[in-house]
Formats: sequence, structure tokens, C-alpha cells
Amino acid sequence: MIRHLLSGADLDAATATRILDTAAEMATVAGREVKKLPALRGRTVVNLFYEDSTRTRISFEAAAKRLSADVINFSAKGSSVAKGESLKDTALTLQAMGADAVVVRHPASGAAHRLAEWVDGSVVNAGDGTHEHPTQALLDAYTMRSRLGRLAGLSVAVVGDVLHSRVARSNVLLLSTLGAKVTLVGPPTLIPVDIAAALAPDTTVCYDLDAVLPTSDVVMMLRVQRERMTDSYFPSAREYARRYGLDGPRMRRLPEHAIVMHPGPMNRGMEITPEVADSPRSTIVEQVANGVSVRMAVLYLLLGGNNA
Amino acid sequence: MIRHLLSGADLDAATATRILDTAAEMATVAGREVKKLPALRGRTVVNLFYEDSTRTRISFEAAAKRLSADVINFSAKGSSVAKGESLKDTALTLQAMGADAVVVRHPASGAAHRLAEWVDGSVVNAGDGTHEHPTQALLDAYTMRSRLGRLAGLSVAVVGDVLHSRVARSNVLLLSTLGAKVTLVGPPTLIPVDIAAALAPDTTVCYDLDAVLPTSDVVMMLRVQRERMTDSYFPSAREYARRYGLDGPRMRRLPEHAIVMHPGPMNRGMEITPEVADSPRSTIVEQVANGVSVRMAVLYLLLGGNNA
Amino acid sequence: MIRHLLSGADLDAATATRILDTAAEMATVAGREVKKLPALRGRTVVNLFYEDSTRTRISFEAAAKRLSADVINFSAKGSSVAKGESLKDTALTLQAMGADAVVVRHPASGAAHRLAEWVDGSVVNAGDGTHEHPTQALLDAYTMRSRLGRLAGLSVAVVGDVLHSRVARSNVLLLSTLGAKVTLVGPPTLIPVDIAAALAPDTTVCYDLDAVLPTSDVVMMLRVQRERMTDSYFPSAREYARRYGLDGPRMRRLPEHAIVMHPGPMNRGMEITPEVADSPRSTIVEQVANGVSVRMAVLYLLLGGNNA
Repeated sequence: MIRHLLSGADLDAATATRILDTAAEMATVAGREVKKLPALRGRTVVNLFYEDSTRTRISFEAAAKRLSADVINFSAKGSSVAKGESLKDTALTLQAMGADAVVVRHPASGAAHRLAEWVDGSVVNAGDGTHEHPTQALLDAYTMRSRLGRLAGLSVAVVGDVLHSRVARSNVLLLSTLGAKVTLVGPPTLIPVDIAAALAPDTTVCYDLDAVLPTSDVVMMLRVQRERMTDSYFPSAREYARRYGLDGPRMRRLPEHAIVMHPGPMNRGMEITPEVADSPRSTIVEQVANGVSVRMAVLYLLLGGNNA
Repeated sequence: MIRHLLSGADLDAATATRILDTAAEMATVAGREVKKLPALRGRTVVNLFYEDSTRTRISFEAAAKRLSADVINFSAKGSSVAKGESLKDTALTLQAMGADAVVVRHPASGAAHRLAEWVDGSVVNAGDGTHEHPTQALLDAYTMRSRLGRLAGLSVAVVGDVLHSRVARSNVLLLSTLGAKVTLVGPPTLIPVDIAAALAPDTTVCYDLDAVLPTSDVVMMLRVQRERMTDSYFPSAREYARRYGLDGPRMRRLPEHAIVMHPGPMNRGMEITPEVADSPRSTIVEQVANGVSVRMAVLYLLLGGNNA
Repeated sequence: MIRHLLSGADLDAATATRILDTAAEMATVAGREVKKLPALRGRTVVNLFYEDSTRTRISFEAAAKRLSADVINFSAKGSSVAKGESLKDTALTLQAMGADAVVVRHPASGAAHRLAEWVDGSVVNAGDGTHEHPTQALLDAYTMRSRLGRLAGLSVAVVGDVLHSRVARSNVLLLSTLGAKVTLVGPPTLIPVDIAAALAPDTTVCYDLDAVLPTSDVVMMLRVQRERMTDSYFPSAREYARRYGLDGPRMRRLPEHAIVMHPGPMNRGMEITPEVADSPRSTIVEQVANGVSVRMAVLYLLLGGNNA
């Protein structure tokens, strides 16, 4: 098993499949009388968040607690430690305090990789800049597999601001490893010409959402980050919603079995309409539930819970 | 048993009494060698707070942990989730993450009710706008019963800014169900003519605190919210303290057995003087202790701890 | 055993040694299969922090959780409770909620002492203004003893802004009790003439770091607080680093066996250079690890874990 989870590229097909299978076992815990497993009792998981991300932090916190780990939340944003101390010194401090795993969210691409060089414990990348968010890719893959029965051969359209999306990046890497075929869809300014090939050889690019829908098994809508919408390369909100937003008529152009995904939180009315978000095709709430199972699996496997 | 606790009006006399009796059992736990009960082991309680209220959050957190539940704190204030996401999507997210109960504090009246429509788990209203705060009413009723031996027939004066007080509202509803007689006392601008009758038929209104004291078994002082004191309908601070503040001479006009309550945190010198706050009649610290017992009882009963 | 830990002066040699010996036992827990001790199960430790100090808070949180206590974090900074409520009312509230120990960080010197007058439980001073930080002194003593084998007779140079340092103050008190000899080193404006004698009779003062190094067993660098550097009594940053910063050449003037300490977080390049901070003489990361063991010992002994 790997020691850290930093990138979708860390995972070969066997490892990724093992995580997804373990997550499926973890999901059955929710149905039991006692919902806690003792697997990580006495282990400490630190959530080191340099950016606000309550949703991701809570998902990891719930996952760790369900495995009986102790969880310590370290919101470095605005903390004096964060200001006066290098990432390395913070990492060494957390390790010295007994952190067995550090779950890190950081605005700088590559921060999780650097952290992993300094600590003996496990590092889980919970989002580093515009770079990667591998547990999101795993929970997305888990959701596709559980809804559609397989990953190999699936056609997945990833729609939106691919340029700045760590979710897109991690998904392309993992899905390609697992045999799905990804098409990146969005405005040309948000999909650099060489990004697809750089990430994975099979990935294609298309600027026309309507052209892609009829042959997609999965449409994954990316969240529009409002703070980027004032940038010059971003279309107007109205133009964006018109061309790349998923609404009812567009949804109906999908094959019967196709599903609609979104990593949340949604901008309803921007990249996705309520009709679509609340339709039976939407897996958005399932993705959240699967996120806890997948993160349980990741923490369990990284921390050697199976040897305990 | 009810599934949610949203309003003092949710509670009939039998249910309210069952909660108070269960709280009395919970209170005995504090005296034991091991202060934790395993009743909610494996259950997850989320504290979803859209407003700062450290005191209430900590009380629920202590209650849940003493029942061995896992607690996740979600301070939505200033969180990006809170900004970009509807209350409904946040609710569905928390449910998907496995929240068995959501304790919610929200600035909008009615928010807890809406939340309860969307989730399968239990919702506890920890204060919604100027609307309700039912666990506060329960802990107040518990305190009266434990100090005075009964609730039926008690004369309770609720003093202050009734118009904006969720504490007052929940207390009137619950006390009236349990047979106490409430008199609302305060400046006319802060007690709308029809509020008493609208809440409970027996409730009366009086603008003269001194007239009410000699026949009151309980005087419940409401907290003055400083941000409201600049409003035009609010008397000057000095005028307010003079007419509606409880000081030593006023306290001595109460019957021998009468008690003085306050939900905290107090503005000493405004609605209550230190002499009164620290007197043996004051139940203010007991109310805090009883709050933990009552919240243990509420979480235990809502989450079916008695079936475990 | 003492009930509170408020000051280095609370500890006689026997008590301090007992804490250090207990900490050494606690440190062995980290090597075991199950890293948690059940000693404080059912006890509640509240971290009441009126100032940001993530590092100290996390250290206490990790210590308490490793003893199976429930931990409640109360960040009073910016909380409405903190604004509207006196420290005394907050203390009584926490006690009523069942806090067995309150770990308090407060900007006002003496706050921890006042808190201890009001509560029945134990109070641990986690830093009060410029006054004291006794668990820091204990972890420093633990580190010296574990690196150098003894405390009695050690020559310890404490270097920097002694005037404003609670770390310096607590260390002088404790080290003097345990038989070490402290020399305070720094600019004259930051070491008042009478401070040394006032703290402990044996303490000496020297304004020349280079003169002290060859005979020091321990050099303890204090953190420069950047907000103080604009004060008129503070030398310029460059001047400070030149005269009182510890760099490689200075480090090499120390005896072979001498160690370099720093309470963290470091200003690398100001009071200490990276070469020194990362050298084998540096105990900075060990101090953090020892901090958890020492705080486990303090909580265990104060809360009577040995009688359980």
C-alpha cells in the first residue's frame, strides 16, 4: 500500500480498486447497530486546513471518528502559527505531537507533496491550489462504479473551468488509470490546448457541451468559483450558464442511463439548474455519502489499519 | 417520542415531563465514577451554527459527548459553504455524511423547521432568529421544578425585551403546557399587545415590574441585546435599568421562596445587578448545569437511545 | 498533589520531579500498540483560549485525548460570550457544564490565578499575558533532563526579550527550584535590572551573548514577537539578529555537549538561523513531543488520575 495520497497519479489500478473495494465495505458499517469501527483507535488524524473548506474537513473528520481515531482540527487560516512559521516547521510540530496522518488543504499547488517529504506519518492531499484533490476523484469513481456497475469504458464529460480545477485534474488521472475515457468540456480560455494530453493520453477536448451529451455516460459539472468570474478569460455569468450550464433540456439529451455529478457546493442556476440537481440522475448527495466511505478506506489503508 | 425538537409547542405535557424526568436521571451521571454513558456510541451529532453561540454549542457538545456520541462542529458563519450553498444543500450534505442529529442555530426565524423537512435524522432547534429556543425553555422548566418542586400553578414573570426573545417565546409555550402562569413584563414597545394571547391563552402582560414581584414564584430576566438598544423603540439604557432591571431592593419584594433566573450571558448592571446575580435566590449557574442534563435527555430520546 | 498549575513557583522540587517522572512514563505510551490510556475517561477538559495559540491548544488537546478525556475547545476570541460576559461568569458556566479542568490562555497577566479562585476543578495556565507559562517550563526542563541527564548544576542561558516573556519567567522559577543556574541575556532595555533577583536569587544577567556561550550547557532562545519590534525600546531587527541571534559561528562556541532550545514557533533568520534550528544540538522538535507527554502528566496528576 502507498504511504501518502497526494495525487490521482499515485494510484495504479490495483491500489485504486482496493481503495474502492474497501470503501464499499466501510459503507456497510453505516447500516449496523454500532456504526464505529475500532480500527484506528489511539491514532491521531490532524486536519490541517490553510483554506476554509468546512465540507471537506467534516467529511474527513466523520471518516476518522467512525474509525475511532482522535481528530484534531487545525485551522491555520488566520492563525499566528501560520503567519510566523514555515509549512515545514508546522509539519514537524504536528508530527512531534503524534499525528499519524495529516490531512492538508493548502492554497499552494504542491504543498501536500512538500509536506510528505518532511513527515514520517501519512499525508492526504485534501486539495492543493489548482493542483489535485485525489479523494474527490476516488469518491467520484466510487459513485460511477456503484451507479453504472463499472469504470472501464465509461465516457465521462468533465465540464467547466478545467484550468483551475483540482477536481478535474485528479479525476482525469484516476479515471484514465481505471479505463474510463474523459472529455474535457468548457470555454477555450479555460481549457489550455495541451492540458488534456499532458494529463492522460486518451483525454479529448470539446468546446461544445451539446455535442458531447448524447454519448456521455457521466456528466461531471465543475463548480464555478465566483471569485474567478471577474477574470478577463472568464465568459460573463449569463454567457457561461447559457453555453455550459446543465439544465433540463440538456439533461434530456443524455442517454437514459447517464448520471450527473457535481463535487459541491453547487451554484444552482449557474453551472446546474435545480431541476437537474434534484433529478434522479443526480448523484450529488450520494457523492457526499460516498466521500465519507472513501475517506474511511483511505485512512484505514494508509495507516495500516488492516495490520492492526 | 417526537423526532425533532423545534418549538416549545412541539411538546405536550407528557412528552415534556418525560424529558424532564430523563434529564433528572442524566444528572445523576455526573456523580458517578465514570461520567459517560454509552447510549449514543456510534451516533454523530452535528452542531450547525450560523451564529456565534459558544455557550449553547458547548452545552450541546458536552451533552452529546457524555452520551458517547461523536460531535462535529460546523461553524457556518463566514464559511464558504454557507455563502455558496443553500440551507437545503447543507442539510442534505450533513445527512449524507451520516449526521444522526443536527443541532442548528440560525439567524432566520423558521430555519430549524425548514431543515427538519429535508432530513431524515433529528433536528434540534438551538435558536432560530427571534422565534424559539426550546431546550432553553426545558432547562428553565427543569430548574423551576427542581427548586420549587412543581410547575403547575407557579407564577412566572418574564421580564425584558419579549418582542425579540426566543427564550421568552419558548418559555411561554412550554410553561403554559405545564400549567404555570406567565406574566410578560417590560416596556410597552417591547411587548406587543397581542403577543401574550397569541402564544398562550393564560398569559398576561404588565408594564410595571414592581407590581408583579410580590406575587411571583419565579422572575426570569431576559438578556438585553446591546445591538438592539440603539433602536428607537428601546428605552435608554439608564431608563431601562431603572424600570426593568432587577436590583437588591426589588429582589427583596419577592416572596421568601421565589427564585431569579437568567439564560445568560448576563449584562451585570443592566438587567440584573451583581447582588441579585450572586444571591442564593439566583439559579443562573444551576441553569447552565441543568442545560447539559436536559440536552442529554433530548438527544437521548430523539435518537431513540431508549431502544438501544 | 497541587490542584492547579498556575506558575512555575507552584512547584516545589518534589512535585516538579514527580511531573517529569510521570511524563517519562506517558512518553512510553507512544510506542505501544494502543496509544490511548483510559485514565481520564469521562472527564472533560476545556481549552479556554482568549488568544490564538493553535500550537499550545493542540498540544493540550492531544494530551487530553490520549488520556481518553473529552475535550471541548472554547475560542473566546471574537466570541459574543467573551464580549458580554465577565471571566468569572464564563468560569462558572464552564464549571456548571462539567469541566473537570480548564486550560486557559489569556492576554491579561494574572487571569489564570483569578480563574482558579472561582472554580472547583483544576486550572492550568497555558499562558497569561507576559506573566507565566508553566507547562512550557516543565517541557523545557524535561527536555534538558532527557538530553543532559540532570538539571541540578546546569548553566542555562535564556536569550531575548526577557521583559515580555512568560516562557522566561516560568523557566527561571522552575529551573531555580530544580537547581539549575540561569543567566538572562538580551538588550538592556529588555532585561530590567531587578528582574533576575526578583524571580530567583541565583539568576544573573549578561548583555553579551558571546561571553555566555562557552560556559552554557543550554541556550534557550526566546521568540521575538514581531508586534513588539516597533516599540522604541526594541533594537532594530538587523541589530537584534546581529547581537542576539544564534547563528552557526556562535553555536560552535558552545561546549560540545550543549543544546539549543526554542519554544517555537521560530522566526528563522531573526533569533535563530536555519543552520542552528536544524542542527543535532537543536531540541526544538523534541520539545514539542515532550510537551504532549508533560501535559499528559499534568492533567493526569491534577485530575487525580492516579487515584482512579
